[in-house]
Amino acid sequence: MKTLQSLKARTGEAFGAPLPASTGEQVDAAATAALASFGDWSASSAAVRAALLRGLASALEGDREGLVALADEETALGPVRLNGELDRTAFQLRRFADLAERGDAFKFTDDPAVAGGPPVGHPAMVRLRVPLGPVAMFSASNFPFAFSVLGGDTASALAAGCTVVIKAHSGHLHLSNRVFGLIQQVLQAQGLPAGLIGMIQGGGSDVGVRLVRHPAIAAGAFTGSTRGGAALQAEANARPRPIPFYGELGSVNPVIALPGVLAARGAELAATLAGSIALGCGQFCTSPGVIVLMDGPASDNFIDALVPALTAQKPHAMLTPAMRQAFDAGVAHMLKTGVTALLHEDGTAEAPRPFLAQVSAEEFIAKESLREEVFGPSSLIVRATSAAQVLQVLQAVGGSLTVTLWGAETESDEARLIVRHATQIAGRVLFAGVPTGVAVTAAQQHGGPWPSSTQPMTTSVGDAAMDRFLRPVALQDAPAWLLKRQGQPC
Amino acid sequence: MKTLQSLKARTGEAFGAPLPASTGEQVDAAATAALASFGDWSASSAAVRAALLRGLASALEGDREGLVALADEETALGPVRLNGELDRTAFQLRRFADLAERGDAFKFTDDPAVAGGPPVGHPAMVRLRVPLGPVAMFSASNFPFAFSVLGGDTASALAAGCTVVIKAHSGHLHLSNRVFGLIQQVLQAQGLPAGLIGMIQGGGSDVGVRLVRHPAIAAGAFTGSTRGGAALQAEANARPRPIPFYGELGSVNPVIALPGVLAARGAELAATLAGSIALGCGQFCTSPGVIVLMDGPASDNFIDALVPALTAQKPHAMLTPAMRQAFDAGVAHMLKTGVTALLHEDGTAEAPRPFLAQVSAEEFIAKESLREEVFGPSSLIVRATSAAQVLQVLQAVGGSLTVTLWGAETESDEARLIVRHATQIAGRVLFAGVPTGVAVTAAQQHGGPWPSSTQPMTTSVGDAAMDRFLRPVALQDAPAWLLKRQGQPC
Repeated sequence: MKTLQSLKARTGEAFGAPLPASTGEQVDAAATAALASFGDWSASSAAVRAALLRGLASALEGDREGLVALADEETALGPVRLNGELDRTAFQLRRFADLAERGDAFKFTDDPAVAGGPPVGHPAMVRLRVPLGPVAMFSASNFPFAFSVLGGDTASALAAGCTVVIKAHSGHLHLSNRVFGLIQQVLQAQGLPAGLIGMIQGGGSDVGVRLVRHPAIAAGAFTGSTRGGAALQAEANARPRPIPFYGELGSVNPVIALPGVLAARGAELAATLAGSIALGCGQFCTSPGVIVLMDGPASDNFIDALVPALTAQKPHAMLTPAMRQAFDAGVAHMLKTGVTALLHEDGTAEAPRPFLAQVSAEEFIAKESLREEVFGPSSLIVRATSAAQVLQVLQAVGGSLTVTLWGAETESDEARLIVRHATQIAGRVLFAGVPTGVAVTAAQQHGGPWPSSTQPMTTSVGDAAMDRFLRPVALQDAPAWLLKRQGQPC
Repeated sequence: MKTLQSLKARTGEAFGAPLPASTGEQVDAAATAALASFGDWSASSAAVRAALLRGLASALEGDREGLVALADEETALGPVRLNGELDRTAFQLRRFADLAERGDAFKFTDDPAVAGGPPVGHPAMVRLRVPLGPVAMFSASNFPFAFSVLGGDTASALAAGCTVVIKAHSGHLHLSNRVFGLIQQVLQAQGLPAGLIGMIQGGGSDVGVRLVRHPAIAAGAFTGSTRGGAALQAEANARPRPIPFYGELGSVNPVIALPGVLAARGAELAATLAGSIALGCGQFCTSPGVIVLMDGPASDNFIDALVPALTAQKPHAMLTPAMRQAFDAGVAHMLKTGVTALLHEDGTAEAPRPFLAQVSAEEFIAKESLREEVFGPSSLIVRATSAAQVLQVLQAVGGSLTVTLWGAETESDEARLIVRHATQIAGRVLFAGVPTGVAVTAAQQHGGPWPSSTQPMTTSVGDAAMDRFLRPVALQDAPAWLLKRQGQPC
């Protein structure tokens, strides 16, 4: 039997007893059970779905102390962050409960018959949306609550009427088990089948690949690295029946700081940016990995303030030893590729020090590998000699979850052009603040062109996340009994 | 220089002079020109977009006689159908002009700031949608107007603010050239750049592959065979930066006829269905290729009426000699796979005769190749012994543009179950009439799970077709000048 060993993130020591990895048969059984539960769940009322989501939120909150303690051992993210993340997770479970009740995502387009021949005349049509089927949900390492077992993907899939099989992340095995225990209790208490939400565990990629290939699975949802997401997407595409695969991957999240605002508030912005780069040891998909500055004294002064602000950040262990090694490798690669280090100190075996470097826009555009995300507290200043070169830098980045633009308060040709180029490559464009911190709200868009996500037309955070699991269907000349169901599938 | 030769569809003879195939440099130039035009077009007003779309509609109508005559030579679809299709094409160009003006697709979600920390508090957000960029549009053979050079994909992409490079179909080369000539005149008359809509021609796959691989291209749209669409989608996925590829492919469009309705109106329905199978020589993506019947006398009588009704259909040349050969090969494969022929007559070199066969549900479920579309006037009766077996047949089909269900006027457990299974696999579910004929209207959904389309969450017909080319973007703390633009990108 294969086993999995959890590690203490702060020391790398073994944590708790080894756990059995799911066997292939267990993966199949979870997928089959999710399909068996799907018919009833897809036809369940909004009240039933909302009650489950709220029950899960309360169960998380009810076990807060134990969960946060476990999560802290396995991730080293600290109790403040983890309590906040648990709050957010409960908040989004309840928000999707509200959305299920409000029913906007299920509202149908009523398109009454028009007499006469085509193209003007047409039969009575309605357009509604039906849940896709069982969703394979791949947990993230860096959000052990909010993008993990009961995270946004699970919440939005359940609200849409899909059942879920969760692939737990091996970075927080015991936490995942404890949350899954709560799920099973809530399902039982509400008289819902255990198979509605399944969970599997595995160390390598075999368990996840088997899950995404399973014929019962109708969609995949993933938060993690570009490499891992791309591999699973390829599996989803290679199925005899390809399925949608929603991968929220990595990105470099350029921050463009124009000289005017740096002259006015450079020191304050340097402190803010340093905090964002080092936040949670840079282990956010929205961590600002590229800072675009125009040549000039305001930018020079800004860098002079940024270096000590970063140096002053407290050390923070990374999520796993593998990530710690990958960070060092990423930094070493950057240095070999010709960047000039501005801040480069040795860290400990678990906690790296922030890394800051600088390169010309020309070099950045010429060298593709400089545009790859280094997961952790690393950022690369790109020096541009003109606004036109700033646009070229954005084009070279190509796809990002966010672009931040400081200094565009006043309309100008330059501001308009940068905004246009930013919206062409990013899912979210910020005009103040820092990209870390993704609000769970109506207008959120967390997902952008490749390599930041596999399905840039969708979002994994915010109200529209539910849309990923609902497919439009037109009913033509539908009988009265069916239309009375008001968009609820049979 | 490579050349392309058009053929008369009715005789297979050469039609007109050979035309030069586009060179690789010409493909690149068209893509580059579409990108150069994109900035201005994406920022153009609704009035400008509507004027172009209406100008193109009028240009088609103004050249109706010449266009229909050319199309008839190259496709053999006949003047009645072709005039109707031209009407439809002009109708949908004008409909997307109206939609661009109405602006619903660009309406933004306003999500004002909420004070306080997360998860409840959040900054001011708006969610809007921006055009993707230049679209590679692959014309279909079977709709020389409505899904070709100025078809629905081109119309919806232009309305969304995207520029377009058209890959003309080699089945109607001269028609494509003539329509492209009209486009160039309209662009010039309206003072718009020639590169806004480009066109390339090629016989094999090389020209299309080069187009979809070109870095300037931001999305693909395709109507055609599953094989061709899958190959181009693989190219789109294999790019250094993958792009959305909207392929509307083939499907078998099951028609389920329950015994009750067949007992009451079997003869009438047989005549209707025969017309749909043979319509346009079965060369519709919604042609009913599978007829699911329950064992019993009503079904037997229905078949007895269907055979002569099909026999009475007039011969009709296929679009190209290659399609004619593929039809014979498909029929031969079915016969080898063990179906029982009910109608199988020799046709001419150009025009096949309708083919009808029968197989048990068990065999149909067991043999995957029986579920592949045979493009042309062919249909396979699948005999089920129970309602449960009907559901299994739908599950085996897996994905289809349409499912038609006759006899579900009254609510019953059986009807609900079939509807549920039908909505799980189809984009459109009909309760009366036949699947051929796809209304261009608000609630249309033309696209379903694999193999019927590559992006089942989207539609290639109807108002929502525009959504394929608009990507959501959230603006956080956007300055006042930008919000004043009301969802129009910069």
